[in-house]
Amino acid sequence: MATINDIAKQLGISKSTVSKGLNHATDISEELRQKILETAAELGYANKKLKKSDKKLCIFIENMHWDTPHHFGYDIVRGFRQFAEADGWKVDIIPATIELQKLTPYTVFMIQNGYHASFVLGFTLLDPWMRDFGTCKIPTVLYDNYVKNNPFVASVGCDNQEGFELSVKHLHQLGHRKIGLISGPMESYITNARHQAYMNALSKYNLEINEDFIRLGYYASEAARKYVPALMRNGVTAILFSHDIRAIAAINECNSTGIRVPEDLSIIGFDDLPLTTRTEPALTTIHQDRLALGRCGYYAISSLLNEVPIGSILLRAPLIVRGSTGPVPKNPHVVV
Amino acid sequence: MATINDIAKQLGISKSTVSKGLNHATDISEELRQKILETAAELGYANKKLKKSDKKLCIFIENMHWDTPHHFGYDIVRGFRQFAEADGWKVDIIPATIELQKLTPYTVFMIQNGYHASFVLGFTLLDPWMRDFGTCKIPTVLYDNYVKNNPFVASVGCDNQEGFELSVKHLHQLGHRKIGLISGPMESYITNARHQAYMNALSKYNLEINEDFIRLGYYASEAARKYVPALMRNGVTAILFSHDIRAIAAINECNSTGIRVPEDLSIIGFDDLPLTTRTEPALTTIHQDRLALGRCGYYAISSLLNEVPIGSILLRAPLIVRGSTGPVPKNPHVVV
Repeated sequence: MATINDIAKQLGISKSTVSKGLNHATDISEELRQKILETAAELGYANKKLKKSDKKLCIFIENMHWDTPHHFGYDIVRGFRQFAEADGWKVDIIPATIELQKLTPYTVFMIQNGYHASFVLGFTLLDPWMRDFGTCKIPTVLYDNYVKNNPFVASVGCDNQEGFELSVKHLHQLGHRKIGLISGPMESYITNARHQAYMNALSKYNLEINEDFIRLGYYASEAARKYVPALMRNGVTAILFSHDIRAIAAINECNSTGIRVPEDLSIIGFDDLPLTTRTEPALTTIHQDRLALGRCGYYAISSLLNEVPIGSILLRAPLIVRGSTGPVPKNPHVVV
Repeated sequence: MATINDIAKQLGISKSTVSKGLNHATDISEELRQKILETAAELGYANKKLKKSDKKLCIFIENMHWDTPHHFGYDIVRGFRQFAEADGWKVDIIPATIELQKLTPYTVFMIQNGYHASFVLGFTLLDPWMRDFGTCKIPTVLYDNYVKNNPFVASVGCDNQEGFELSVKHLHQLGHRKIGLISGPMESYITNARHQAYMNALSKYNLEINEDFIRLGYYASEAARKYVPALMRNGVTAILFSHDIRAIAAINECNSTGIRVPEDLSIIGFDDLPLTTRTEPALTTIHQDRLALGRCGYYAISSLLNEVPIGSILLRAPLIVRGSTGPVPKNPHVVV
C-alpha cells in the first residue's frame, strides 16, 4: 500500500501538500488537488487514518430501483445496511450515473469522499468503472458482476448454475425435451452467466442445444410478443427466462393470445419478485434471497477489509415451483 | 425447524423424556436416548437453548496434519480459531475417523455434543458423513468439498479455475503447447475439480486435450517416477500438479535422473507450502492463503447461522512464479 510519502515523492512536492490535497484543504489549487488524488489512486494509496475516524461505506446503484419494498434492489440495500450499520458503519447510497463515472475515476471518487469500501449494484459491462475495478486497490464488492485476478474485488450473487440445473431437472421430469431461453442482450455479465448456465444444464441432461431455441432482446414485452411464438414454432415446449420481468411479460402475452400456460407452454423465471405470485398462473421461478444477498455483500466487504481475498460468494438458488410449469403437451400447440 | 414437541409426538413419548434424551440425563435407557437423538436429527431439530448457553463450534479433520506450523492444516485451523474465538465461540478439534462416522450419524453427533455448527477439513467423497451433509439441517462448512442444494451446508476453497487459468496462461506465454497434469485418484472432490479446471484452462487457450498428457496416482513419489518420463515421452514440456507435494516429488525425481527443471521440463504445483521455496529450483505454484481459508470458513459459518444461505465462497488463487517454469525447450529432452 502506498503512503503519503510515496505520493509526495512521485509528484516532487511536500508531504504536507499531499495531505492538504487528500483532506479537502482549500489553500491549494483544484488542479493540484486532482493530480494528488489521481496519483494516490494510481499508487494504491490507502488512508490508514480512515480506520480511526469516520467508518463510511457506500452502495453504488445503477439500472436498479430500490426505494420501495416491491423494487428489486430494496431488500438488497436493506440487508446490507442491517449488517453494516450494526457494525458501526455509515452507509451512503449513490446513483452511479455514466456521467459521474466518466467524470471521476473510481478510486479518486472513493479517496475524495473518504469511503473505505463499496458495494456495486446493477452495473453492465459497459459501465466505465468496470475497467477501474480490474485494477483498483480499494475493497469493492460487485453484485452479479465479476472481475478476474484482483484480490481487492469480490463478487456476490446467486448460483446461476444451480438454479438452471434445478429448472432443467424439473422440466425434464415433466417430460420436456426442447427447452428454450429468452434472455437480455449480452452487454451484462449476468446475461452471459445465465446463458452459459442454460447451456451447461442442457448438456447435463443430454438435451438438444440449438440456436433456434434461444432469443435475446432488450425489451421484455417486445421479446415476449416476438420470441415466444417463434420458439414454439421451433418445437420448444418450455422456456427459461433470464429474469422474472421477462417471464411475466410472456405469461401476459400467452394469456392475451390464447396460449395456455402450462398446458401448451411451461414458463420459468429467475428472481422470485413479489409480483410472481400474482400472475395467472403464478410463476415457477428461481429464488434470489435479496435480503441475504445484501447481508452477503457486507460479509464480503468485511472479508476484504480483513485481508481475506474472497473472489466470489454464491448463494443457493432454489427453484420455487408454482403454476406456470406442467407436463409436456401431448399434442404441441400450433402457433399461427 | 422441529421442536421437542415434534420429537415427542413422533415417538409417542412425553416432552420431558425427549428433553432428558437430548440433555444426557442418566435416568432413561441408552437405547431410548439414541432413538430420541436420531429422531431429532431426522426431523431437523435445532436446540434454540444452545444459543443462550455454551457457544460451541467444532472442526472435523481427516487426512490432514495440522499440529505444527509447516503442516497444511495449521494455518487453516489458526485462521478459523482467531475469528471464531474473537466472537466468543469455543472451538473443539475432532479427528473424524471413518470409525466415528460409521458409529454415529453426523447430526446425532452434533446434537449429542451441543455443537452449533462445524467446519469440515480433509474429507474424501468416500467419507460416510458426506452423505449426511446432503440432508443435514445443522450449519456445516466444507473445505474443498461441495454438496448440492442444501441451504445448511456451504463450501469454501480456492478458485481452482482461476489458478489453473493463470498457470496455463503463464506456460502459454513461455511457448508451451503440450501441457500435462499429474493428479491424485478421483475419490476426492478437489481432484475432480482440478481435473476439470485443467481441461477448461486448456480449452480456453486452444491447447491440445489428450488423455496421454494426464496421469492419476495415489503415491506422490511413485507417480513422479512413473509418470513424469511417460508424459515427456508423449511430448509434454510442462506439467501441472494437483498438489505441491506431488510437484516437489517430481522435482526431486528430475534432479536424480538428469532431467533439468525448467530447461527440459517446467513444473507448477498447487498450495504454496512453505517447502516450495526450498526445492532446487524453487517451485512455481498456485497460492492457497490458508489463514484466509480458515477465516473464511468462520465467515461462512456466521453467514449460515444468520440465515444467509451461502453455497460457496471461493478465494483468489494467484500464481507465484519461481524457478521451476521457463521457456519451452527448443529441442525436447529425450527420455529413455
